[in-house]
Amino acid sequence: MATLYVIGIGPGGEDHFTRAMEKAIGASEVLVGYTPYMAYLGDRVQNKEIISTGMKSEIERCKAAIDQVKAGKTTSIISTGDAGLYGMAGPILELAPEDMDIQVLPGVSANFASAARLGAPIMHDFVTISLSDLLTPWELILKRVAMAVEGDFVITIYNPRSKGRPNHLRQVLDLMMDRGIEGSRPVGIVKNAGREGEVIYRTQLDQVDVEVVDMLSCVIIGNSKTYWKGDFMVTPRGYENK
Amino acid sequence: MATLYVIGIGPGGEDHFTRAMEKAIGASEVLVGYTPYMAYLGDRVQNKEIISTGMKSEIERCKAAIDQVKAGKTTSIISTGDAGLYGMAGPILELAPEDMDIQVLPGVSANFASAARLGAPIMHDFVTISLSDLLTPWELILKRVAMAVEGDFVITIYNPRSKGRPNHLRQVLDLMMDRGIEGSRPVGIVKNAGREGEVIYRTQLDQVDVEVVDMLSCVIIGNSKTYWKGDFMVTPRGYENK
Repeated sequence: MATLYVIGIGPGGEDHFTRAMEKAIGASEVLVGYTPYMAYLGDRVQNKEIISTGMKSEIERCKAAIDQVKAGKTTSIISTGDAGLYGMAGPILELAPEDMDIQVLPGVSANFASAARLGAPIMHDFVTISLSDLLTPWELILKRVAMAVEGDFVITIYNPRSKGRPNHLRQVLDLMMDRGIEGSRPVGIVKNAGREGEVIYRTQLDQVDVEVVDMLSCVIIGNSKTYWKGDFMVTPRGYENK
Repeated sequence: MATLYVIGIGPGGEDHFTRAMEKAIGASEVLVGYTPYMAYLGDRVQNKEIISTGMKSEIERCKAAIDQVKAGKTTSIISTGDAGLYGMAGPILELAPEDMDIQVLPGVSANFASAARLGAPIMHDFVTISLSDLLTPWELILKRVAMAVEGDFVITIYNPRSKGRPNHLRQVLDLMMDRGIEGSRPVGIVKNAGREGEVIYRTQLDQVDVEVVDMLSCVIIGNSKTYWKGDFMVTPRGYENK
């Protein structure tokens, strides 16, 4: 029986490919993905049938992958990061028939990739929130930010800012300060984590320049115990004194 | 100059090793880790100096790794999951001198590994909370659970239950229902995700048998939109109707 592999290849560079992904891609007749991501696969695309489409065609890509498996061809659908977080695993499982053999392979998510470049900013209880309001009401997003502040979570933000929503990040950072986070709270921003064009910004809550942030950036706001140690953003493992 | 690599090798099986980890381990003279985890490295330990210690000696392991690097030996300190989440990256950066060359390599975290085995339960905004109160006040943990419920986050729980805290998970699940989550909310539990001895439980909030849960289990509670589709736990990507 043909298998559908749902693969998030990590932040982009092949350094974060896992052995399970290499095997799945190797076993696939067909590779489906967003055109720019296919370049990360390098030679692995040789002798494969390739179906690649533009940014807005996620659902179309999912349907194409499902159709290939229905036609008996083992197929990998490729995204970046981990396919299970704002990725392709959800739409694939929503659209595929229940009896299809589907294997979701875990990968290195953009927030952990960004965190590693900053040091150890996550380390403790954390939340991940996307600021994209395409599919989620903006009021719910703001409520989640407020709850995250109230719970003193480390906060990692996806889709912080784009041309279509230039002010979302600014609004959220202001809300955090309104809700009582001090201006000196450490903030790390990583653009293109772990791939070409990587930029790291080390700053604090009241000094974030939102203009440097784009939709490929991950923004990490520390909890009340997070501090900078040289270039490293460090969240201690606990609240007690050692 | 010697380098200290901080590596979370993923859930355990070598299937989730990344190429960056293989390179770092290959470049290391010394490997430091918790004794049972060193077995996951297989032949990679050959011709290396190995420093392994028991469960309670995390800080001791960190100090040993730092000392090796101070002595000029490139060293990898190994944990499972991602080293940046409840892992070794924090204590290493807290304890090491500022001028040491430290590289944190991101890995596949236990919650994403567990999520992949369940299908796509995370997919949207989520929180991760550890129920270990060794270093965090229990009241703060309960407050975080309440905030997570209020924000309708997907909730992933680490360290849900151990001999020393047999009732923590029960208390937290009861709090979730007190706070208004319906009993039919999907819950997935994965023990030993992605390695030998893996067990997957598919259930709902008011039917969780906490007796099957141990400290190596990850518990995932869906948000208000999460549903079961056959064996797959699926959280849709958004709140709007397509």
